[in-house]
Amino acid sequence: MYLYFSKAAFQAAFCFVHLFYLLSDMIKVGIVGGTGYTGVELLRILAQHPNVSLKVITSRQEAGLAVDELFPSLRKYVSLKFVDPEKAKLDKCDIVFFATPNGIAMRQARELLDAGVRVIDLSADFRIKDISEWERWYGMTHACPELVSEAIYGLPEINRKQIKKARIIANPGCYPTAVQLGFLPLIEAKVVDTNSLIADTKSGVSGAGRKAEVHTLFSEAADNFKSYGVPGHRHLPEICQGLSNVAGKPIELTFVPHLTPMIRGIHATLYARLTSNKTKIDLQMLFEERYKNEQFVDVLPAGSHPETRSVRGSNYCRIAVHRPQGGQTVVVLSVTDNLVKGAAGQAVQNMNLMFGFPETLGIEHVPILP
Amino acid sequence: MYLYFSKAAFQAAFCFVHLFYLLSDMIKVGIVGGTGYTGVELLRILAQHPNVSLKVITSRQEAGLAVDELFPSLRKYVSLKFVDPEKAKLDKCDIVFFATPNGIAMRQARELLDAGVRVIDLSADFRIKDISEWERWYGMTHACPELVSEAIYGLPEINRKQIKKARIIANPGCYPTAVQLGFLPLIEAKVVDTNSLIADTKSGVSGAGRKAEVHTLFSEAADNFKSYGVPGHRHLPEICQGLSNVAGKPIELTFVPHLTPMIRGIHATLYARLTSNKTKIDLQMLFEERYKNEQFVDVLPAGSHPETRSVRGSNYCRIAVHRPQGGQTVVVLSVTDNLVKGAAGQAVQNMNLMFGFPETLGIEHVPILP
Amino acid sequence: MYLYFSKAAFQAAFCFVHLFYLLSDMIKVGIVGGTGYTGVELLRILAQHPNVSLKVITSRQEAGLAVDELFPSLRKYVSLKFVDPEKAKLDKCDIVFFATPNGIAMRQARELLDAGVRVIDLSADFRIKDISEWERWYGMTHACPELVSEAIYGLPEINRKQIKKARIIANPGCYPTAVQLGFLPLIEAKVVDTNSLIADTKSGVSGAGRKAEVHTLFSEAADNFKSYGVPGHRHLPEICQGLSNVAGKPIELTFVPHLTPMIRGIHATLYARLTSNKTKIDLQMLFEERYKNEQFVDVLPAGSHPETRSVRGSNYCRIAVHRPQGGQTVVVLSVTDNLVKGAAGQAVQNMNLMFGFPETLGIEHVPILP
Amino acid sequence: MYLYFSKAAFQAAFCFVHLFYLLSDMIKVGIVGGTGYTGVELLRILAQHPNVSLKVITSRQEAGLAVDELFPSLRKYVSLKFVDPEKAKLDKCDIVFFATPNGIAMRQARELLDAGVRVIDLSADFRIKDISEWERWYGMTHACPELVSEAIYGLPEINRKQIKKARIIANPGCYPTAVQLGFLPLIEAKVVDTNSLIADTKSGVSGAGRKAEVHTLFSEAADNFKSYGVPGHRHLPEICQGLSNVAGKPIELTFVPHLTPMIRGIHATLYARLTSNKTKIDLQMLFEERYKNEQFVDVLPAGSHPETRSVRGSNYCRIAVHRPQGGQTVVVLSVTDNLVKGAAGQAVQNMNLMFGFPETLGIEHVPILP
Repeated sequence: MYLYFSKAAFQAAFCFVHLFYLLSDMIKVGIVGGTGYTGVELLRILAQHPNVSLKVITSRQEAGLAVDELFPSLRKYVSLKFVDPEKAKLDKCDIVFFATPNGIAMRQARELLDAGVRVIDLSADFRIKDISEWERWYGMTHACPELVSEAIYGLPEINRKQIKKARIIANPGCYPTAVQLGFLPLIEAKVVDTNSLIADTKSGVSGAGRKAEVHTLFSEAADNFKSYGVPGHRHLPEICQGLSNVAGKPIELTFVPHLTPMIRGIHATLYARLTSNKTKIDLQMLFEERYKNEQFVDVLPAGSHPETRSVRGSNYCRIAVHRPQGGQTVVVLSVTDNLVKGAAGQAVQNMNLMFGFPETLGIEHVPILP
Repeated sequence: MYLYFSKAAFQAAFCFVHLFYLLSDMIKVGIVGGTGYTGVELLRILAQHPNVSLKVITSRQEAGLAVDELFPSLRKYVSLKFVDPEKAKLDKCDIVFFATPNGIAMRQARELLDAGVRVIDLSADFRIKDISEWERWYGMTHACPELVSEAIYGLPEINRKQIKKARIIANPGCYPTAVQLGFLPLIEAKVVDTNSLIADTKSGVSGAGRKAEVHTLFSEAADNFKSYGVPGHRHLPEICQGLSNVAGKPIELTFVPHLTPMIRGIHATLYARLTSNKTKIDLQMLFEERYKNEQFVDVLPAGSHPETRSVRGSNYCRIAVHRPQGGQTVVVLSVTDNLVKGAAGQAVQNMNLMFGFPETLGIEHVPILP
Repeated sequence: MYLYFSKAAFQAAFCFVHLFYLLSDMIKVGIVGGTGYTGVELLRILAQHPNVSLKVITSRQEAGLAVDELFPSLRKYVSLKFVDPEKAKLDKCDIVFFATPNGIAMRQARELLDAGVRVIDLSADFRIKDISEWERWYGMTHACPELVSEAIYGLPEINRKQIKKARIIANPGCYPTAVQLGFLPLIEAKVVDTNSLIADTKSGVSGAGRKAEVHTLFSEAADNFKSYGVPGHRHLPEICQGLSNVAGKPIELTFVPHLTPMIRGIHATLYARLTSNKTKIDLQMLFEERYKNEQFVDVLPAGSHPETRSVRGSNYCRIAVHRPQGGQTVVVLSVTDNLVKGAAGQAVQNMNLMFGFPETLGIEHVPILP
Repeated sequence: MYLYFSKAAFQAAFCFVHLFYLLSDMIKVGIVGGTGYTGVELLRILAQHPNVSLKVITSRQEAGLAVDELFPSLRKYVSLKFVDPEKAKLDKCDIVFFATPNGIAMRQARELLDAGVRVIDLSADFRIKDISEWERWYGMTHACPELVSEAIYGLPEINRKQIKKARIIANPGCYPTAVQLGFLPLIEAKVVDTNSLIADTKSGVSGAGRKAEVHTLFSEAADNFKSYGVPGHRHLPEICQGLSNVAGKPIELTFVPHLTPMIRGIHATLYARLTSNKTKIDLQMLFEERYKNEQFVDVLPAGSHPETRSVRGSNYCRIAVHRPQGGQTVVVLSVTDNLVKGAAGQAVQNMNLMFGFPETLGIEHVPILP
């Protein structure tokens, strides 16, 4: 009975709130680079976002093609065609998402901001504050260093306040989201040695993008498991920057990513050593407290093993914390959908914050299981 | 601009309609047998259906367990516990779904109907009108033959009118949905020989259910492809009954199902011979005309090859029709998500019709791709 | 006891035979185009073939690279490097395999034959006798029509005698092998209508090759099923040519290929209508008789459903024949590993025949299951 | 030219050696419990082992069934039927493999040894020397503690000498093989802190066996990644025992296993901290030296990332060693096929050693790729 009325009431409230937004807050949205996996995922989400009007999607290569011809899953939901970036009137949008390869957004963001358009960059162009560090890892000269310092790193669980006021967001990478959310409570509480952190991470193949490459062919990646980038991966400096900010001092991280034969999902297995005077800490409570007000971070009951499919298609990060054999090593298990909380979903979460919408608006999808 | 306003208008209209329903039409829903794949899929859909209040979910084996403990994907969406069927107050519901093995619904439906509860049976108990035929294929004595004649076969594209007034629905099987929707225009238009129909169908492994069995283990079913049930499969009489009704005479069908290493999805490849005087027929137009008013049947442009992932997680059936080399053989390609249009989604579509809700309410999910 | 001695005796006999070959018949083998899947599969097989000495493997793109650097699976088995085709001394070989894209072998075969080298072409250059038909389907002008008539179509179960004396072999396509072996007994025995044959075929993704393309990416092809090439696929004329030869008149075939999310394997589901005066035929016996002397065609017991994994990594074709509900439609199920019996294994079987080796030499691998 | 003659010479030598064995060393082999994945893998290997005569395969449940009816992949290779264990004349064998669940071998080994039969147990019954430790982890009373002390732990890379003389072998677990081979050089050379070892391991689903269970169903395990057993897994004490023996003192290990959606393969990602005075060590040389005489351990070139498919179907363990950013943390990557080097292949390797056969006899399979 209780459930019945509460849901009805919720629905009613939702509708009134919804109507209010409709009259005031419908926003015009553009997407630059809509042909990759983060692009099509943005489309999936934004096509049903109640406050969003999709205005333009650019693609140099597919200009003129109907979006739903490339992605038949969007038939009946998206009626736009891809537009050549030169001809796209992005400056008429309220917000533009960059779902582009690295190196594009940094050349176009300035002009959009000057036109009063807000920007969320899903690529890595604005994530690293240290320009020379960025240039070293990404192998190019940064075209717009001055915006890097303005850009807010879009991890709402850390930077919610700044995001709300931001003009430009550097949307976090997929691994960095899962890894930082997993380590965050431990580092904030100063209970682990920050010089020997280990992140053993596993990603579904969609994390490698929709580009035609041999190593991500089905016949190469299926029924196979491997690590890659062990000597150094671009998400390492991003994670270190974020966690060092939290720690208030440089942290040291060994980061080993792996490719696993599934389409979506990231599983981060994190290892940290408890500092010797903190061995009595109640880790379960620490994590539950830290995330009790976070709508998209779900701390599982003690003893749990989160599965990537438990977040498939949704914006959740589910976390469990273990201390095997009661020893000094803490093991944190953190899962996300790399295309949602690890990319497009988090971008929409940031958009919601920037425009004063409810943070969960349009990203309440129930995970698809099985 | 057009799109912008039309969407806003749609949203506004949606909200008003929605509010209206909230005041009048919130219905109480029960699920019998909520631990299988059709059960959890019903939960995924119903948990966000605006007019539904989930009241009770039964499971003899898992009674007392929180639903979201068995299915962590439902955390924050479903707060019920499984209830022992003996103790479940199903008669307080407006509608009860049976997501049970065959042979359960036929023993419990009568009592619920008598209590004024409507019933949608996702199992096969009420699908076959010929009781002895049913008993032969299902290997048991039917407990409730008199309800079989009352039950409406819940394929809205054929029986929409009757469904609206029905007390009890026999929800179609997964293969029968994809196969019948594919053959329907050809048979209605009487353009093919109904004595030599062939349905070569392929199903994802979830179609076999969540029961622990060796042949559906990952290590058995992955990287493998096989047919099964070639001498005779239970969906054969169901399809024949449906298509014979449409044809107005008995049809003959060769039906060969296959197991394919994916989780969700059905692909039906259908073959029919054009009758000699109908070789000028415009098949593309025939299909488009037949389904122009159907919200969940999407006829693709000529020359298309529908992919199962283009409907993953959604209630769509996408269809393409070919006539290779301009010959006498018509090839129809029909895809669905076996758990949605092939089971839970179609059940909710039927529920919407029975309660006068918009037919698409709560089942507008955009397919998940990739 | 019997088994024990017989195996010992077999082993002893094998060794003597083996020694004999070593003194007389060790052959020098070259591979043109060793970087694709048929290339690496040839390497896997030939590296352990007792009568083969691998002399040269060409690749324009990878010239200079150690073969086992590209394919670490071959470490300790293949110590060659890829050689630029211009510099490869292919004319010193006894036999050269072309594991190249279409259009290469037809330009190089003549010179090799003139130098006394035998040729097995795994591409399609010499498969179709009708040059204009070939040019229509393959979209290029044939560079060497005169060799097409000399080339023997390398399906040993049909052309064993001619293969033994051949200088040049057109190794069959993967679908054509599975489809022809499945239809062969029916057509030879003249028990089915050859004007309404249907081949509904499913292939693992390795059949599409190792070229970087979007549609065969893991994230596109996994958890997905689709047909392709329904209006016309290049293997259609190849199958029609072969079966028409057998029938002694043109046959008509509807051929629908599908892509299934597994790496290796082909499953052909074949449909044919019994001619009205042949409905008493014992199909099981027909198939068993036809293949009783074939080492690589395995007719399963009546009622069986062959699985692709039952031939994974091996040169077998396993076949079952059904007649559902005792009707007029015969259903044949035929499975192969597309890279072995469908390509490299059959090529080695042809090589064995050409050089007078035991037909099974070096291709006796037990299938990998699971 | 060199290669040609050397291969011919090798083949000739092989044949003479082979003949010698045939006259003297053909051995009679029995398998207890042939219906699981380690059982069928033993059959795949032993069916082509030149010195083995398969005499008997037991299965209580499948007694009377032809082995190749359960596993059609073995048609033409294995002509035995499963025999009831009570009726199997195992005492006539030279060696018996136990491919049984835990708790069987410990009840039957004594009698076989007394009859002069050698035993290789692929289950865990004889792996842990500390009986109470074993009983704690395996939840049963050990039926035969006295044999535990006699049994040799069958990791040839450590215990080759003792294996040659052993009557009974405890064949290592799949994870323990990959993990110990990866840590071995570091611990033997005393260059890492043995109190903070971490093994983050990933297994294909076949590691969970062929038992019907929900969590290993295709629809549960596919497109999904999860850890399990983080609080404690039975392979932890086995690894600790082995590495502690090598270290000469108790080591401390955090062991986190994961399930990855592939059939075969283990990937162990190992982390260890270099002791402060050993930071100049040449790790690549250390590993290459340690394994230079090991036929089945392949140390990859510096900078490599071994893939599980590079060992699929073979008895290799491939290893790479990294030191990211030149820091204090060593990362070792170690891959095996869990059913071969992790189970049946290693068992045959042990058998070869016990009977004085060449160590690689019958287990030289080239890995299957793709």
